[in-house]
Amino acid sequence: MDKASLTRQFEDSWARTFEEWRTLLRFPSVSADPEHDRDCRACAEWLCEHLDAAGLEAHVLETPGKPAVFAQRPGRCREPTVLFYGHYDVQPPDPLDRWTTPPFEPDLRGGRVYARGAQDNKGQLFAALKAVETLARADALDIPVKILLEGEEECGSAGLTAVLPAWRERLAADVLLVTDTGTAPSGAPAVIMGLRGLVHATVVLHGPSRDLHSGQHGGVAPNPAAGLARLLATLHGPDGRVAVAGFYEGLAAPTERERALANAVPFDAAAYRAATGVPPAGGEQDYSPPERLGFRPALDVNGLSAGYAGTGVKTIIPARAAAKLTARLGAGQDPRACLDALIRHLEAHVPAGLRLEIAERGVGGAAFRLDPDAPLAARAVRVLRGLSGREPALLWEGASIPAVSGLAAAAGAEPLLAGFGAEADNAHAPDESYSIEQFRLGYLFVALMLRELAP
Amino acid sequence: MDKASLTRQFEDSWARTFEEWRTLLRFPSVSADPEHDRDCRACAEWLCEHLDAAGLEAHVLETPGKPAVFAQRPGRCREPTVLFYGHYDVQPPDPLDRWTTPPFEPDLRGGRVYARGAQDNKGQLFAALKAVETLARADALDIPVKILLEGEEECGSAGLTAVLPAWRERLAADVLLVTDTGTAPSGAPAVIMGLRGLVHATVVLHGPSRDLHSGQHGGVAPNPAAGLARLLATLHGPDGRVAVAGFYEGLAAPTERERALANAVPFDAAAYRAATGVPPAGGEQDYSPPERLGFRPALDVNGLSAGYAGTGVKTIIPARAAAKLTARLGAGQDPRACLDALIRHLEAHVPAGLRLEIAERGVGGAAFRLDPDAPLAARAVRVLRGLSGREPALLWEGASIPAVSGLAAAAGAEPLLAGFGAEADNAHAPDESYSIEQFRLGYLFVALMLRELAP
Repeated sequence: MDKASLTRQFEDSWARTFEEWRTLLRFPSVSADPEHDRDCRACAEWLCEHLDAAGLEAHVLETPGKPAVFAQRPGRCREPTVLFYGHYDVQPPDPLDRWTTPPFEPDLRGGRVYARGAQDNKGQLFAALKAVETLARADALDIPVKILLEGEEECGSAGLTAVLPAWRERLAADVLLVTDTGTAPSGAPAVIMGLRGLVHATVVLHGPSRDLHSGQHGGVAPNPAAGLARLLATLHGPDGRVAVAGFYEGLAAPTERERALANAVPFDAAAYRAATGVPPAGGEQDYSPPERLGFRPALDVNGLSAGYAGTGVKTIIPARAAAKLTARLGAGQDPRACLDALIRHLEAHVPAGLRLEIAERGVGGAAFRLDPDAPLAARAVRVLRGLSGREPALLWEGASIPAVSGLAAAAGAEPLLAGFGAEADNAHAPDESYSIEQFRLGYLFVALMLRELAP
Repeated sequence: MDKASLTRQFEDSWARTFEEWRTLLRFPSVSADPEHDRDCRACAEWLCEHLDAAGLEAHVLETPGKPAVFAQRPGRCREPTVLFYGHYDVQPPDPLDRWTTPPFEPDLRGGRVYARGAQDNKGQLFAALKAVETLARADALDIPVKILLEGEEECGSAGLTAVLPAWRERLAADVLLVTDTGTAPSGAPAVIMGLRGLVHATVVLHGPSRDLHSGQHGGVAPNPAAGLARLLATLHGPDGRVAVAGFYEGLAAPTERERALANAVPFDAAAYRAATGVPPAGGEQDYSPPERLGFRPALDVNGLSAGYAGTGVKTIIPARAAAKLTARLGAGQDPRACLDALIRHLEAHVPAGLRLEIAERGVGGAAFRLDPDAPLAARAVRVLRGLSGREPALLWEGASIPAVSGLAAAAGAEPLLAGFGAEADNAHAPDESYSIEQFRLGYLFVALMLRELAP
């Protein structure tokens, strides 16, 4: 099947695809929140039935965490095998009051479907599944395809990571195909040459045994909210560097060619500001934004909570204050060592009179970088160029897909990451959406890439 | 009426008093929250009817804010006039899940009534009203009594402050009696020689126009939560001093006698830790805790909010971060100038790429100090000694009663502050309570003080 016949097939089946995609988006499969455990399982079971109906041998497989879906189908040739990886879990939808329509009631407006997960990753993965289904139904699958869909990508992929050693044979493949990434800021299609690693920690500073009257205690009782501010302020130097001893250990500098390729993608500060509302003033100003995202770690505060946050005045010294932290890691950094260094730093800087608790902590995978001169990248570039008529970019992305480095190692596969996400999709934010056009491009890319990889 | 006959009267009428007190505590008169405006008015109206029934001429009076209740009754002598001041509004009850029983369903356990406002100020003010009622019903009121109950003490008394110039004649009095304070830590009764002033500000740092994906933006987009931590960390020096230029301007040092009296009240760090869960490690370590509370200002963070605060991981750079700040002021500091200095400091320290909004700001009155050698203090000490059999303390308290300094000036009255609050009452915190014994002491103190003041 060529591009024209695939396009026709896509259009002919769109009405049904659209209804199925909406069904998938209705599952509130929020992996961070244990209250949605059953929704996650229901979503996995629905996907398994869907793959089975599409002609694949599909199973729900247990992990120590959320269940995974595994499916496979042989091709006309015995190799190479492509392992497609995606995730059915989504970010929490908060703040709910910022959504135009409810996050789990998909709404079509102006050619875009609005829902949590519309892009990340239910939209991108469903486009890929539909491509495999189309080839399978047409008996046009040239090579063996395996599909692995997990349910904990948004919270660190711990369950999948735990079972990887036992699943090596099941997952064995030549190419690990992932469509959970985006295009270049210009809109040009992109092959991803690297992703950052991820660790997280929830930091709680405990103070008084209860909220205290700030008049009767102000200036005497240590304040956990003020203390948390002081503690967090020690995490970065005035130059934007992470000021945690040992944090940068092992970080691999990019080659001159990688740096040149990363900086070859135009970064427009004014366009960045227009798209995000802020100038690119975060992090290490000694590096260009593409270098900061692609090659440098970053430590972010994802949330704060303490005391009273409502209208008016509540004169208390709160009993506790909490911060949620995540660090993005560069290639070469050992996630566990980075997390340990962060926690040692926090322990060493607890303000007087307060007690530190690390309420949650976790490792969400290491960073990796691929060789921009490898043949697989060139083949993906060729497919993307033919698909879009635009010159594809090689990108080092700042995001993380926790399982990718571990999965590639376990499967013995070469990662290939390309997707059609865009800043305007609001991934991880209210009013997340994905357009039908992006969905169509993802569908065509996966189908044509599977044809391209045939011997 | 002497102590014995007042005690008998208290006991005879306790069943009815208790039911009335519980009714008063059921009004959720939270002044900080506009959703409780109607509850505040209903509470004021109930108090007005109650005072009317007790034989006083009572009215609900409008202010630009919450309504006030004003009542009066002549005495057998024409002077001196006592103006009693109290407040019917209460602090917000959050966090609700930390209450053993609901905050607006008064519950009697072990001789204590648990409810928001049980002590502050509904318990203390109702004991005083019952004392006036007892004397009035027995035709034993020697001197004229005026009663002013306002509904915005917990959020700065702005409405009352606005009408003070117009109410000078109505409020004219010789003594301003306030029972919104506590005993010494030892439990000895106390006359309050000073209170701190109060200003507040709600600080919002705006960053991206929406929550951003922390992978795609971490290290490039400025983070408002991390920025807020850096901004708040600039507010104090390493010595615990407020590091805001101009903040200490005008602060009056205590006299040697005031300092000696303040330090004469034993401060037990171990007992403080047992009562609060923290050592007295906050504020300026160069000053003793009683000096810090009585004579030094303090700047506290009452609350923080930003991004995601739930379970698990949400990898965002939040769109905004907010902090609620209050400063307690010492005598001599001009509240408006202090607030201006604080806001100038915040404006001067906004981290790059973020925008500062002062979402709320307000002045809640100036600090004041009374002369510990004035005759009125000696008379109060005499009454308290006779009532309790213990030697009363002179205390400089850290708390604020916003209206007191302005009210004393408008009424031309000398303030007299004494009450029976204790740390164990959890004022401003979950499980606030007030014991029947404290209520009884407050009742007897007000009745005996009114007798003491008769010419």
